[in-house]
Amino acid sequence: MTVANGDASTLGDSDGLSIAYVGGGSRQWAPALVRDLALADLDGDVRLYDVNVESAERNAEFGNWVQDRDEAVADWSYEATDDLDEALSGADAVIVSTQFDPTETFVPDLDVPKEYGIYGAVAATIGPGGIFRAMRTIPLYREFAAAIREHCPEAWVFNYTNPVTFVTRALYDEFPEINAIGLCHEVLGTRHRLAEYASEHLGMDASREDVSVNVKGINHFTWVDEARCEGVDLWPLLEELAEGEEARREFTAEDLEGESVFTDNWQVTWELFRRFGVLPAAGDRHLVEYATWFIQGGQETLDRWGVKRTGSDYRAKHWTPAESKQTTDVEAWMSGDREFALEPSNETFVDVLGALTGDGPFVTNVNLPNEGQVEDLQSGAVVETNAVVRENEVKPLAAGGFPRPVRSLVRGHVDVQETVVEASRTGDVDAAFEGFLLDQQVRTLSPEDARELFAELVVAEEAYLDGWDLDASDVLAESSAYPTE
Amino acid sequence: MTVANGDASTLGDSDGLSIAYVGGGSRQWAPALVRDLALADLDGDVRLYDVNVESAERNAEFGNWVQDRDEAVADWSYEATDDLDEALSGADAVIVSTQFDPTETFVPDLDVPKEYGIYGAVAATIGPGGIFRAMRTIPLYREFAAAIREHCPEAWVFNYTNPVTFVTRALYDEFPEINAIGLCHEVLGTRHRLAEYASEHLGMDASREDVSVNVKGINHFTWVDEARCEGVDLWPLLEELAEGEEARREFTAEDLEGESVFTDNWQVTWELFRRFGVLPAAGDRHLVEYATWFIQGGQETLDRWGVKRTGSDYRAKHWTPAESKQTTDVEAWMSGDREFALEPSNETFVDVLGALTGDGPFVTNVNLPNEGQVEDLQSGAVVETNAVVRENEVKPLAAGGFPRPVRSLVRGHVDVQETVVEASRTGDVDAAFEGFLLDQQVRTLSPEDARELFAELVVAEEAYLDGWDLDASDVLAESSAYPTE
Amino acid sequence: MTVANGDASTLGDSDGLSIAYVGGGSRQWAPALVRDLALADLDGDVRLYDVNVESAERNAEFGNWVQDRDEAVADWSYEATDDLDEALSGADAVIVSTQFDPTETFVPDLDVPKEYGIYGAVAATIGPGGIFRAMRTIPLYREFAAAIREHCPEAWVFNYTNPVTFVTRALYDEFPEINAIGLCHEVLGTRHRLAEYASEHLGMDASREDVSVNVKGINHFTWVDEARCEGVDLWPLLEELAEGEEARREFTAEDLEGESVFTDNWQVTWELFRRFGVLPAAGDRHLVEYATWFIQGGQETLDRWGVKRTGSDYRAKHWTPAESKQTTDVEAWMSGDREFALEPSNETFVDVLGALTGDGPFVTNVNLPNEGQVEDLQSGAVVETNAVVRENEVKPLAAGGFPRPVRSLVRGHVDVQETVVEASRTGDVDAAFEGFLLDQQVRTLSPEDARELFAELVVAEEAYLDGWDLDASDVLAESSAYPTE
Amino acid sequence: MTVANGDASTLGDSDGLSIAYVGGGSRQWAPALVRDLALADLDGDVRLYDVNVESAERNAEFGNWVQDRDEAVADWSYEATDDLDEALSGADAVIVSTQFDPTETFVPDLDVPKEYGIYGAVAATIGPGGIFRAMRTIPLYREFAAAIREHCPEAWVFNYTNPVTFVTRALYDEFPEINAIGLCHEVLGTRHRLAEYASEHLGMDASREDVSVNVKGINHFTWVDEARCEGVDLWPLLEELAEGEEARREFTAEDLEGESVFTDNWQVTWELFRRFGVLPAAGDRHLVEYATWFIQGGQETLDRWGVKRTGSDYRAKHWTPAESKQTTDVEAWMSGDREFALEPSNETFVDVLGALTGDGPFVTNVNLPNEGQVEDLQSGAVVETNAVVRENEVKPLAAGGFPRPVRSLVRGHVDVQETVVEASRTGDVDAAFEGFLLDQQVRTLSPEDARELFAELVVAEEAYLDGWDLDASDVLAESSAYPTE
Repeated sequence: MTVANGDASTLGDSDGLSIAYVGGGSRQWAPALVRDLALADLDGDVRLYDVNVESAERNAEFGNWVQDRDEAVADWSYEATDDLDEALSGADAVIVSTQFDPTETFVPDLDVPKEYGIYGAVAATIGPGGIFRAMRTIPLYREFAAAIREHCPEAWVFNYTNPVTFVTRALYDEFPEINAIGLCHEVLGTRHRLAEYASEHLGMDASREDVSVNVKGINHFTWVDEARCEGVDLWPLLEELAEGEEARREFTAEDLEGESVFTDNWQVTWELFRRFGVLPAAGDRHLVEYATWFIQGGQETLDRWGVKRTGSDYRAKHWTPAESKQTTDVEAWMSGDREFALEPSNETFVDVLGALTGDGPFVTNVNLPNEGQVEDLQSGAVVETNAVVRENEVKPLAAGGFPRPVRSLVRGHVDVQETVVEASRTGDVDAAFEGFLLDQQVRTLSPEDARELFAELVVAEEAYLDGWDLDASDVLAESSAYPTE
Repeated sequence: MTVANGDASTLGDSDGLSIAYVGGGSRQWAPALVRDLALADLDGDVRLYDVNVESAERNAEFGNWVQDRDEAVADWSYEATDDLDEALSGADAVIVSTQFDPTETFVPDLDVPKEYGIYGAVAATIGPGGIFRAMRTIPLYREFAAAIREHCPEAWVFNYTNPVTFVTRALYDEFPEINAIGLCHEVLGTRHRLAEYASEHLGMDASREDVSVNVKGINHFTWVDEARCEGVDLWPLLEELAEGEEARREFTAEDLEGESVFTDNWQVTWELFRRFGVLPAAGDRHLVEYATWFIQGGQETLDRWGVKRTGSDYRAKHWTPAESKQTTDVEAWMSGDREFALEPSNETFVDVLGALTGDGPFVTNVNLPNEGQVEDLQSGAVVETNAVVRENEVKPLAAGGFPRPVRSLVRGHVDVQETVVEASRTGDVDAAFEGFLLDQQVRTLSPEDARELFAELVVAEEAYLDGWDLDASDVLAESSAYPTE
Repeated sequence: MTVANGDASTLGDSDGLSIAYVGGGSRQWAPALVRDLALADLDGDVRLYDVNVESAERNAEFGNWVQDRDEAVADWSYEATDDLDEALSGADAVIVSTQFDPTETFVPDLDVPKEYGIYGAVAATIGPGGIFRAMRTIPLYREFAAAIREHCPEAWVFNYTNPVTFVTRALYDEFPEINAIGLCHEVLGTRHRLAEYASEHLGMDASREDVSVNVKGINHFTWVDEARCEGVDLWPLLEELAEGEEARREFTAEDLEGESVFTDNWQVTWELFRRFGVLPAAGDRHLVEYATWFIQGGQETLDRWGVKRTGSDYRAKHWTPAESKQTTDVEAWMSGDREFALEPSNETFVDVLGALTGDGPFVTNVNLPNEGQVEDLQSGAVVETNAVVRENEVKPLAAGGFPRPVRSLVRGHVDVQETVVEASRTGDVDAAFEGFLLDQQVRTLSPEDARELFAELVVAEEAYLDGWDLDASDVLAESSAYPTE
Repeated sequence: MTVANGDASTLGDSDGLSIAYVGGGSRQWAPALVRDLALADLDGDVRLYDVNVESAERNAEFGNWVQDRDEAVADWSYEATDDLDEALSGADAVIVSTQFDPTETFVPDLDVPKEYGIYGAVAATIGPGGIFRAMRTIPLYREFAAAIREHCPEAWVFNYTNPVTFVTRALYDEFPEINAIGLCHEVLGTRHRLAEYASEHLGMDASREDVSVNVKGINHFTWVDEARCEGVDLWPLLEELAEGEEARREFTAEDLEGESVFTDNWQVTWELFRRFGVLPAAGDRHLVEYATWFIQGGQETLDRWGVKRTGSDYRAKHWTPAESKQTTDVEAWMSGDREFALEPSNETFVDVLGALTGDGPFVTNVNLPNEGQVEDLQSGAVVETNAVVRENEVKPLAAGGFPRPVRSLVRGHVDVQETVVEASRTGDVDAAFEGFLLDQQVRTLSPEDARELFAELVVAEEAYLDGWDLDASDVLAESSAYPTE
């Protein structure tokens, strides 16, 4: 990743950082950021941009409130804005993390495919739901990329918006010199789990930071072929565990009742490890959308493998502003209704930001266009590997290739992603449908069902499909679901 | 393809050709060969090798009987043998075309997957049935390749045995310098069809020979992106036809009743052409096994697209020696019960053989290891393109690449093929199962169903799975279908 | 190569062909074409375009005069024009074959580098002279390509202008859908030589047409790794000859005195064959410019290897209109001063044209953008391999790759070619100089000498360097040879 | 790089390290290691192996003597051995750093090519001298690799022996799972220089550690396309400096008189930067052997560019045990004749070793087989890039590709290296000669001179060419220099 310009005002200095937060009205992630920043050895100001400016204002208020706490060691100031250009202007770092109204988008992403027998567990990053999420999101992120090119071309851009691969790819497609990285927790979770195994089985007192993995793949379908804890190779342990009882558990619907959808039973992980000899590094509920054998047979199969499907009711409830838990917290904290403790979140953003200002090197997993870090995947596709973060620099680590079967699985998904992103350049719906057809979840449908599912999703989410030339589509014209006058 | 040795006794001369026919007891293809040779400008002798030597002897008798006919212009003599080494010794050309007992092999290939909802239309070249056919056949063909290396390393080897890709690949894997080509009718059928369109719609009086296509892909999943009839570009016509009524027919089970399984309604072809912009060049019944949307939904979907599934009863009946139509013919012809007319078959073997002896150049489609003829497919994988045949030389034509979605489909199948062939080197069942899991038909199954289907097929066809180390398989040990003591 | 449009008026019919000849005032090649066309089974009209319209008129007159001869079996009419658009309009085939004033271009190409110790033997296709020829020619051919796109986008374009690789590459760079092929004799000469060897040593009565070779590389640096005569492998013979006396001859300047520069002693060929195990397939005088060991040591080394350098005096004399032998012939023939016999030339153009109209398939060597025909060379670079020509279709044969050392040599030259052609897009002189520096002949110079040689050539040929932004060049500004005000 | 086995006794712990030093009698590098280890936060034992066991014993004595100094914070013990197996047995880390008698090897490497006009400045890593050094060294290192496989397959192997690329490549060729890295100072020197520029021109107080570069290429021909000092982009500064006076200095022989050969005037660096837009990152004296324009014209050109050639007399004197400066030091230190101060060297070995035991991450440049870290160079070739070193893990950073001209230069050298290493597998002299012919320095010779130079070098160094089948060579048989009976 080249920083074309040597302007000393960009990162490389931990004082006076200027951060733009696109989607700054976020109820979950913004408060976490506020707390992490308050505890960091970094100072500056944060501009929270949101189309829903009230949410941004509430977070700004919270941010400044936290700064007044004694435990806040850093010096940050927050303001809200509904002007994107203003938010970006002169930013050293840009966080992008946005979503559309879940009731109108996530809910059909989950429910419409289910009518066709497709039981995507999350439906957020691949499969029909994930592809539609990409189709909704990409045009907006092309606009963000263009605005970044205009207002802060040197800024480091942190993308948290799903589907991370599609979105990060689109940012680069629109503005190839952008300094963007896609960030995600899943690999961190794997490292955490491996630390637990090392502690339990090898008598080590290990935490996530002690575990290093050689990770590669695409977001939510990453794989590990080396793992160490404090330098000790964990592979023999993994091979032993894979054959043990814990790795061969079977679940029933009753077992899962009351469980959080985020509980990760790792049975999908173990099965894939046994079959292919490399370890998947994402939550089971994400893996099953890429390794689609685990959603064949629908609910029953998911149950048996201990994967709880994100219910669309849950989605609608928990992500809707009025009822989300996080909203309540911020206001409760400030009002004193709930006790506030200034504790760090589990996120790595502040670590990455710190390393970019000189507090490195820091190694963590990131999503970046492939320039060799994953062998045998096409150049330019967005892949996830470790990277080393240093002052004003992020460099992916060369992670090597895959065993052929895993490479085949990964490539298939990359082809879907590249096809859809390419189609988005001109808003060519039928070209995007080619990517939709390639999707492994869609491949369980007959040609006509695939077309009708596509058309139904277009109808359900049409209000969010700006940038797509629906009228020019032969596929929609052929369908019975899509109304033509 | 390099002919390493300049021995003038190999091809390059049309007189005194020595042909070995492995599987020479064939009831269908051997009598066709006999007739074509009798009408060719070539002379020599043919050794028919078969484990079932009686069948070979009957064909030898028929061959010599045909030679006595007045219309026979060439001079050929036939003899049968059950000694492979003797058959191959000094051969200029080797034909390989064998099969196992259909009742014990093809029938489970079709019927067992169907129990799992997999409606492979032919089940002979991909999908669970095709993969098992490959697993049965490859070890035997490794033996053939080794024998060819020993007895006639310079010979031209014509493989007709399905699955052509797997088998041809295995021949090269075992003996990389082999001069083998895989041959198949399907592209010829496409050219025939295009000639009909040119005749009907462009007022040309065209036959297959007038049509040239730029063909590429893998056997039974080949694609055409240029087509001409007597030099006239057929693409505009194809694009027009694709939108017409004939290309949008829907069928019911009743429509298909009484139809031959070989009737090709081209509806799958047209649909794929509309979706991807390139034309598939194989019968619809083969295409659906690779473009698996058309078998999702099972019988109903097949019916709607006008594809008749090869019934296992048909298979067993028509391919079993005692009842096959061809057997009857040969004997009937010789006995005089049926009138015999010496007419050429539709095969290209004699054309290729003629071109190899100097009567070229002749351009036709062949299956060969990729050395650039298909861009963006891996080197060494067996691909199908046109080749030009000249004296003692076969060279594939560089056909270019694919649109990304089609390339993705093709690559997925190549990965299955390469995985299984590689597994066959050591007989590693679990490695072969990785290929099985990758198969698009199998991807509709849950992990456990995939494993059980695999194990059931092993059980059903165990007598034919020489060369696979079944006892060492974890997958089989996990399964309930496979008995372990 | 895709013919995008099915217009039946383009090739595919041998009657009423419309040919445009760009550079139709040619004194050597045009009369040969006239004779070949007169003897062909093709009819039509030829428009001879030339900036020197008198030359074109003389050739038109000659063409029509030949048509009146009894032996002329075909029916062709000729006319001259100085209007390029008119010449191209509606053409089925376009021949491009032009040159600049040799005294002002070829002479410095040969003489200026010689002052720096660079003894390019022909200086026409690579090395400093070849690169400058490319720099002079490419901008004009970009104009031709643009005019072809406008007036006859479907036409088959036959490029004979050197440097064939650079020029053909530039045609495609400007108009990627152009149906252009670069044609050259050299491989035909190799086949002719091999036929002589087969006749002499194997007792065959062989001619060029009986010899097939697997050829690959770039024009004038092509290599053969398979050769057969009537199907008989010639490799063992070549290996034997390579060790014999005839393949180890050493020459002195005296030996070569009076010899034609076109005499090919094949000693360079044999030495390269001994070293690298594959056979070069171009005249020694061309090979030495690519395999530059043979010009190190200058005249003495050339002499020792039996290669006569094209003298710049020869060039100036023989290629200058007023004195060229061919000019005299045409006029002498028509005036009756010299007896005229209507005999075919040795060219393959009419064979290719015939095959394009349906008289095929015909296999011959052509220069085309790489789409896999040469493995391990970059896609898009213009390479030379065999191709099969059929009705309205030219398809290269997949020729495989090279032994690493030969691949390395070839790739180095391709990099020069690609660098210069890319630089020509914007006329970036310093980018072209990077290609110049990479050239193997130039690599014998110090950095300063390389720069001064470049600048001297610019000065000498400045009148022909339209399309290059000389003023913007840092390299020229640094040089002492190039005047700056 | 995969650590196949999780044996906890290998690195990942900073106590009780077991180091084998192959070539432990070294007079320069071993004493430096002793000092660095004494100051490190690491403990263990070091076994110094050398065929010249006296030298090893002297270094062991010195090592233990240093440990007795008060300033020595670490706890290390040293012993000498002449038994390789014993030295390697159970080693956690292996240092390899050996040389042959310089009078009999380096001297002809420099002097013999000079007679042919080849003025290699160092003649140690490429060019005829470098290739012969490789040919001498590779067979021995194949033995080392085999011994490491047997005695300490998990050990980290640090190769300092030149030619680093050839030698590291040979280690991997012999034992693909070896954990070897090739280390070299040159890039560190570039970072040091850039720190000086940043200090001088940007008012920063910078040292080498503050400078990060994106480095890629092959050892001694590495290139930088990004450089930062404390996060500040140095590119604008470099572009400015490149046009200034300091970057356009010209030298005469007189200017250089009395200068050390190690003085680096950076004029070659600046010229290459101006021409190609990327910055070379090795000393000028190394660069000129790869960018051979700078040695064309011999001594005069070297002088003009400020590069002092390593004189063979210097080589013989300074590297011969009896007279080398370093030897004197160790003995003088121990005897008290010279004052000893325990100060760190400039080497990174101890930093790397520390990082491997958990004191990381540490980023530095290393030589490793390419698995994607350099785009568009072949997989497996040994390339130099940055790597991040963590506990028991070294991972190269993906550095991207090159501008085409630089890629072409680098690839040419890689082809030489790969050709020679491949030839060394069977000791095929003529195959190695193919690599020799490809070398850019050799390409200035005629075919016969190239052969004679090769033969003369064989004759001069025959005693060191074990492992090469000289008798089977056609090239040597053809030469006049190589005696045949």
